[in-house]
Amino acid sequence: MSSGNFRVERDTFGELKVPSEKYYGAQTARSMINFKIGGPEERMPLPVIHAFGHLKKAAAIVNETYGLDSKIANAIVQAADEVISGKLDDHFPLVVWQTGSGTQSNMNVNEVISNRAIEILGGELGSKKPVHPNDHVNMSQSSNDTFPTAMHVAVAIEVNKRLLPALEHLLNALDAKRQEFDKIIKIGRTHTQDAVPLTLGQEFSGYVQQITNGIARVKAALPRVNELAIGGTAVGTGLNTRKGFAEKVASKLNELTGLPFVSAPNKFEALAAHDALVEMHGALNVLATSLMKIANDIRFLGSGPRCGLGELSLPENEPGSSIMPGKVNPTQCESLTMIAAQVFGNQVAVTVGGSNGHFELNVFKPIIVRNVLQSIRLLADGCVSFTDHCVTGIVANEKHIQKLLYESLMLVTALNPHIGYDNAAKIAKTAHKNGTTLVEEAVKMGILTEEQFKNWVKPEDMLAPK
Amino acid sequence: MSSGNFRVERDTFGELKVPSEKYYGAQTARSMINFKIGGPEERMPLPVIHAFGHLKKAAAIVNETYGLDSKIANAIVQAADEVISGKLDDHFPLVVWQTGSGTQSNMNVNEVISNRAIEILGGELGSKKPVHPNDHVNMSQSSNDTFPTAMHVAVAIEVNKRLLPALEHLLNALDAKRQEFDKIIKIGRTHTQDAVPLTLGQEFSGYVQQITNGIARVKAALPRVNELAIGGTAVGTGLNTRKGFAEKVASKLNELTGLPFVSAPNKFEALAAHDALVEMHGALNVLATSLMKIANDIRFLGSGPRCGLGELSLPENEPGSSIMPGKVNPTQCESLTMIAAQVFGNQVAVTVGGSNGHFELNVFKPIIVRNVLQSIRLLADGCVSFTDHCVTGIVANEKHIQKLLYESLMLVTALNPHIGYDNAAKIAKTAHKNGTTLVEEAVKMGILTEEQFKNWVKPEDMLAPK
Amino acid sequence: MSSGNFRVERDTFGELKVPSEKYYGAQTARSMINFKIGGPEERMPLPVIHAFGHLKKAAAIVNETYGLDSKIANAIVQAADEVISGKLDDHFPLVVWQTGSGTQSNMNVNEVISNRAIEILGGELGSKKPVHPNDHVNMSQSSNDTFPTAMHVAVAIEVNKRLLPALEHLLNALDAKRQEFDKIIKIGRTHTQDAVPLTLGQEFSGYVQQITNGIARVKAALPRVNELAIGGTAVGTGLNTRKGFAEKVASKLNELTGLPFVSAPNKFEALAAHDALVEMHGALNVLATSLMKIANDIRFLGSGPRCGLGELSLPENEPGSSIMPGKVNPTQCESLTMIAAQVFGNQVAVTVGGSNGHFELNVFKPIIVRNVLQSIRLLADGCVSFTDHCVTGIVANEKHIQKLLYESLMLVTALNPHIGYDNAAKIAKTAHKNGTTLVEEAVKMGILTEEQFKNWVKPEDMLAPK
Amino acid sequence: MSSGNFRVERDTFGELKVPSEKYYGAQTARSMINFKIGGPEERMPLPVIHAFGHLKKAAAIVNETYGLDSKIANAIVQAADEVISGKLDDHFPLVVWQTGSGTQSNMNVNEVISNRAIEILGGELGSKKPVHPNDHVNMSQSSNDTFPTAMHVAVAIEVNKRLLPALEHLLNALDAKRQEFDKIIKIGRTHTQDAVPLTLGQEFSGYVQQITNGIARVKAALPRVNELAIGGTAVGTGLNTRKGFAEKVASKLNELTGLPFVSAPNKFEALAAHDALVEMHGALNVLATSLMKIANDIRFLGSGPRCGLGELSLPENEPGSSIMPGKVNPTQCESLTMIAAQVFGNQVAVTVGGSNGHFELNVFKPIIVRNVLQSIRLLADGCVSFTDHCVTGIVANEKHIQKLLYESLMLVTALNPHIGYDNAAKIAKTAHKNGTTLVEEAVKMGILTEEQFKNWVKPEDMLAPK
Repeated sequence: MSSGNFRVERDTFGELKVPSEKYYGAQTARSMINFKIGGPEERMPLPVIHAFGHLKKAAAIVNETYGLDSKIANAIVQAADEVISGKLDDHFPLVVWQTGSGTQSNMNVNEVISNRAIEILGGELGSKKPVHPNDHVNMSQSSNDTFPTAMHVAVAIEVNKRLLPALEHLLNALDAKRQEFDKIIKIGRTHTQDAVPLTLGQEFSGYVQQITNGIARVKAALPRVNELAIGGTAVGTGLNTRKGFAEKVASKLNELTGLPFVSAPNKFEALAAHDALVEMHGALNVLATSLMKIANDIRFLGSGPRCGLGELSLPENEPGSSIMPGKVNPTQCESLTMIAAQVFGNQVAVTVGGSNGHFELNVFKPIIVRNVLQSIRLLADGCVSFTDHCVTGIVANEKHIQKLLYESLMLVTALNPHIGYDNAAKIAKTAHKNGTTLVEEAVKMGILTEEQFKNWVKPEDMLAPK
Repeated sequence: MSSGNFRVERDTFGELKVPSEKYYGAQTARSMINFKIGGPEERMPLPVIHAFGHLKKAAAIVNETYGLDSKIANAIVQAADEVISGKLDDHFPLVVWQTGSGTQSNMNVNEVISNRAIEILGGELGSKKPVHPNDHVNMSQSSNDTFPTAMHVAVAIEVNKRLLPALEHLLNALDAKRQEFDKIIKIGRTHTQDAVPLTLGQEFSGYVQQITNGIARVKAALPRVNELAIGGTAVGTGLNTRKGFAEKVASKLNELTGLPFVSAPNKFEALAAHDALVEMHGALNVLATSLMKIANDIRFLGSGPRCGLGELSLPENEPGSSIMPGKVNPTQCESLTMIAAQVFGNQVAVTVGGSNGHFELNVFKPIIVRNVLQSIRLLADGCVSFTDHCVTGIVANEKHIQKLLYESLMLVTALNPHIGYDNAAKIAKTAHKNGTTLVEEAVKMGILTEEQFKNWVKPEDMLAPK
Repeated sequence: MSSGNFRVERDTFGELKVPSEKYYGAQTARSMINFKIGGPEERMPLPVIHAFGHLKKAAAIVNETYGLDSKIANAIVQAADEVISGKLDDHFPLVVWQTGSGTQSNMNVNEVISNRAIEILGGELGSKKPVHPNDHVNMSQSSNDTFPTAMHVAVAIEVNKRLLPALEHLLNALDAKRQEFDKIIKIGRTHTQDAVPLTLGQEFSGYVQQITNGIARVKAALPRVNELAIGGTAVGTGLNTRKGFAEKVASKLNELTGLPFVSAPNKFEALAAHDALVEMHGALNVLATSLMKIANDIRFLGSGPRCGLGELSLPENEPGSSIMPGKVNPTQCESLTMIAAQVFGNQVAVTVGGSNGHFELNVFKPIIVRNVLQSIRLLADGCVSFTDHCVTGIVANEKHIQKLLYESLMLVTALNPHIGYDNAAKIAKTAHKNGTTLVEEAVKMGILTEEQFKNWVKPEDMLAPK
Repeated sequence: MSSGNFRVERDTFGELKVPSEKYYGAQTARSMINFKIGGPEERMPLPVIHAFGHLKKAAAIVNETYGLDSKIANAIVQAADEVISGKLDDHFPLVVWQTGSGTQSNMNVNEVISNRAIEILGGELGSKKPVHPNDHVNMSQSSNDTFPTAMHVAVAIEVNKRLLPALEHLLNALDAKRQEFDKIIKIGRTHTQDAVPLTLGQEFSGYVQQITNGIARVKAALPRVNELAIGGTAVGTGLNTRKGFAEKVASKLNELTGLPFVSAPNKFEALAAHDALVEMHGALNVLATSLMKIANDIRFLGSGPRCGLGELSLPENEPGSSIMPGKVNPTQCESLTMIAAQVFGNQVAVTVGGSNGHFELNVFKPIIVRNVLQSIRLLADGCVSFTDHCVTGIVANEKHIQKLLYESLMLVTALNPHIGYDNAAKIAKTAHKNGTTLVEEAVKMGILTEEQFKNWVKPEDMLAPK
């Protein structure tokens, strides 16, 4: 069946030539013809492919208990392990922009694993013997339950293995800075305007809280991601599968990955909706919101070096300008805020996709999983990069911080309890108008003595309730 | 100080006339001049005003324990109760599009309560005696901690009192239909195309699961909404407030509302970010996603009466067309899907607002709370309306459902285990081409007998794994 | 038919009581029962109601030419004029969250106008004689063509009468500042970091260009908004209307409003899609993008007064804090950036609504027009407020601007052509490290003389190509 | 300087090793270390790189007129041509998630071109002699003006060369179907419910109008994309460039690409804002809205084959299910609607990026251009795929269309002018209730004769005004 650089593969629509060095078959080749959309960057994300490897392996092991020939099951397991390892990545050429059920990606996996298993067993590629892509690799399954299962497995793995460690990494770095900056009193800023003081450590404690909460939010969304569609087959009823199959596969996946997967309590929901991934992306969206805030603060606090706020020095990682010598820019903040903006966009794509399920199947599956996985990856990598190339190297410019603090007019707030809001306001406004200090004007107005001012206006006493 | 229909009020910027029948003062009047934006529909949402009533009441009671004169405290409590009751709604004219900290809305509340309290105590409106808006009503507080506190209290109340009951109402109605439709076998549809059968009850069970999960998601977001900023004052340090004030006010609010409010663990985060509300809106966004799916399904299943899917009859609530007599439309589905689209939009507004905090204060507070409250209200009212005027009245057109089921070609799937996928495909395609039935073609092809067909293709056996 | 405070009205579904002082009839009353969603702020926007007034007036005049009794036509015109004037606003209680075709709002208009016309002609309210809501007021029309017509008329009027003048107002103010600040040389900032100089006038010229382009964009979207659906009736074919009716009504509306309305070239598109309004909102979205940028710049340039950039002083419009005396905040910037965030959200709502048309009718009409109108109103009012209470009062702090300029290290860029990029970089970095000036380090390094520095580094020579 | 598989390159930050077979230098290598974010799919889009090739070529030619050595200029031109051709694609490894100004991508281009030009001239890679990346390739330029120039050039090329032809292709196919279906009368559907008839050609004419308008919208956004930032250098003043440089480079680009590029009228706007690309994406967003509508219609009209609307047969391109034999799905519609959802998401990313410019520079450039280019590519490829694999193969199921038409109750509308709306409604409702035909009930009620019915209810007379 193989000639020259091509071999003939066949599906229910007829024959097609495929490159002889590839394991995929007719349905994959057909999808490549039907969906020439975008370049290589539009490929089905690899975490989905690898998750399929886990799933097909688990299914083969379980199917053996239902009577699948052990030799076939073992060959499938071996081929699936190669999919998981990334060794066969080049055999998955399909793009995201295919059928909305991901059927052809399921078939791509079935074809690659069956052909590789055939090869392992000494058979002929494309012969579908002794390992048939549908009858054996896809046994007791349907694209409609395998694809959403692979979506959830991929997202759960990426969240656990990539995102959460990255967030912990950032959290630790921010918390270290919080401690380091604990005694540095600085001017606060509200409405971007001068306000009453706080410590730089307190300022960073807000960021620490945001990331702490962010981690909790992502974790809170995981339980529903851990629920798997497998066992629902075509419309959720489980037709053509076996009682217990769903639970056994979930349990085997649990064992293979170390993640607490369970069979979804309602398969109709699990096929027709992807609320669990919309929910997960909602948690990513909050994270992006937090990171946008933190990165913006840091770049503005680090603005200057001479004409900005200048409270922080950020690490100098690269030349900042091809025309302005000596310029250093907060590029890690820029990268991270761009990532946040992308996540905000992905949130809409995921939501629109999630809301457009019809009847027994949502057919926006590939776009949903793609955007969730991209957001996870960008947030994770972005946080690590931001931590290592920015946060850990932040230096507080203590001199400048103190200079600003003492020039500020908002220390006047400390006088409220002593002379009342209206008098305090008068002093601040006059000093502002005249370009003078609070104490000068206060004394000139006869409202208080210099002595009293010194006793009442102590930044270190303005950092907590009394 | 009062003449004709106006009275003179004063703030640190000077004097202003206010209508003599209004309790608000100079800062409110000034904001009305500065922000003539939008019509009455752009007012600060009333749940925020009422939440402020709770907060000012709680603060007065707590302040009494720190030395606030009991007479003043009592008058504040009485005035605050009137704010809570809605009796003073007309005294809160400010729009959402004001300062991003909500300062003028806090002052509006302070002014109304102080003037009403002054009136109660027999004083002169605008005199600030014996109840001063800043010194007494705002005692130990700042706009920067009261406004976010009111945001959280308002959202918590609206979620608990309005949204969750509405969702339970919808859930019960859907679940009743699930049971009612439990035995009705119908054609499944995937990719909008005919697929294998399921029961109408199973189809509705997916909706039940979506709303069940949706309720869980909203509840999961509440704990962080229950954390209150109060006690942070201007920048989060708690300057000018008292130790214990934060915890006591949260506890008093808990007591007054029955909701488990606590003092936020980190006040810097509580002022500078609104991640908790972005998170809550994320849960609303998933709900909207679910409702869009459910309402779309129901309107398509109810399409017809003669030229659509025609499986469901929806209640006829109103004449459907001014030109087509007898037309009845799925208007409740339309209303609900429009609400979902609005929530998707609000999600972006909330996210952009939430991501734009700078330094010690997020100044997108009014827009954030407004969109969260609008989404809650629309979802809640929309669900009740959809339940009462649509779901409960849905009737299954059993005859038509059965007719479609038996005409379907996808029953062929039941033959897979007996004759293989490829043979089954051949039968289905031929019947489709010839406009014949499966059994006719199967027998004609000599693949099976009519007897076998009857034994193998039983919709009632296609509803679960074996 | 009228008794006590109610009168009985009737539609094809039966009888309903309506308040006797209201002109609306049974279909309006029925919609109020069916759609109890949201408070008064969720009403169908008044510009839609008033646009309906124009439309029904135009239709009556045209229908007279097709044989409608003149007495009836005249009474309809008179009643429609009252609708246009806003006199009857209280008679339009329906909310946005009704049927997605706006049918009941069309009927609300038909009912109010027919009853008012009946009253004018001495008939009995609710009798439908001599002016029938369907047969006369809605003559040759369908909700499916009148509602989208009213959408377009409302948007065109609001854009022309409200938005464009507001944008011109802002443009003029920004351009006046551009001229005023023409000679003030200041430090530039890229990446929020110090960069080479420009004039404050040049900086404002960017804003002027943005608003100039924004006006052009809005105008460019108008031609398709000016195309009207009228004449399409129920599905776009124009069934039950008359040849020429579409063109005559459009022409009459043109005459009544002074706006260049035309009959849409394809009525099927005009009913089933609302791309023209998605397009218009896209132009509003760009405006919001521009305004976010401008308002952010102005608030950061105005940050301080002592610890920020401090280049601009913004008008002091209100007390800024209930706890920090003398604080003044950039509240107009805050209001405007919140508006921008809302418009970003509305863009999604409009887009989702616009994309969900099915077959011959888009049934997300009310949400689309509501969001477009809200964005127009908020942008228009926000621009006027921002102009009058912020832009016109901006003062350049020339002393501080000059101080920053001369402290900056980025003037070193002027040395590139003389000593090369690498040498210039060395000077800037050393001065930064040592906290010294460029000239000090340059001379110390022996790269150039003080004389040369003075000749080569002249900010006024750095403002244009050579 | 080169040893083993690496060579040493140097920038102002020091030395770095780069792979000896790559042309890029130290700044590129440094950026790869600093921004390890995402996999290969996150690379700076190639259209930006190729546009940079055009730009550097144009700049070198123009710089020659300002005195750049001809030998150097020619070598730069030759190297730039290789960049344009795609031959050097492997030398551009940087990701989107770098500095927000794209500085390192500009430097990547400068480094690759200078090293390749050095090679052409027989020099040593990394020596910067005789072709210096900054002094020669970047001569008279800054990242701040070259990157936005490359953004606009890339978008203009992709729109003109890829998107517009694809839209014309779709338009022609839809228009051919419109003509083909011109005489096929079918039931209309509004609110997804049966309505009055139209021709299938009229239905398709709506799609034709949508795409016609969509093309006009994209073209209307091009003039501002054709305005180039080049000549603004670092902050828009044009410091360190030459008078006339901007205009000459734009004109040369015009000549090289055949596209009407011009120098932007205001360079401050061109660097600090990207409104022109937000505007362009707004036009793409409308297109996506239209395509979502069209693809949804087509998949629902093609739903079935037995239990859906079944009016259209879509081409069978691939097996539809791994479990349901013979199933064929509207996969091209699914792919296209997923693309639409992605574009809706990208709209938010572009808008948020566009709104976040600060002072003299927007530093969300890479994310903006990436999303615009992705949307263009997906829409273009998606439209071609949808056209070739779906639209051109659509077949009208005339028999079924006619069957539905005559079963419909909405033909009753034709009776309105003869028997009035209320009578017509009665007939339709009764027939609906009894499952009978209109004529049966009309005659039974004595409202008209069968003869009259036949004369009055003619679908072919219901397709236009009278």
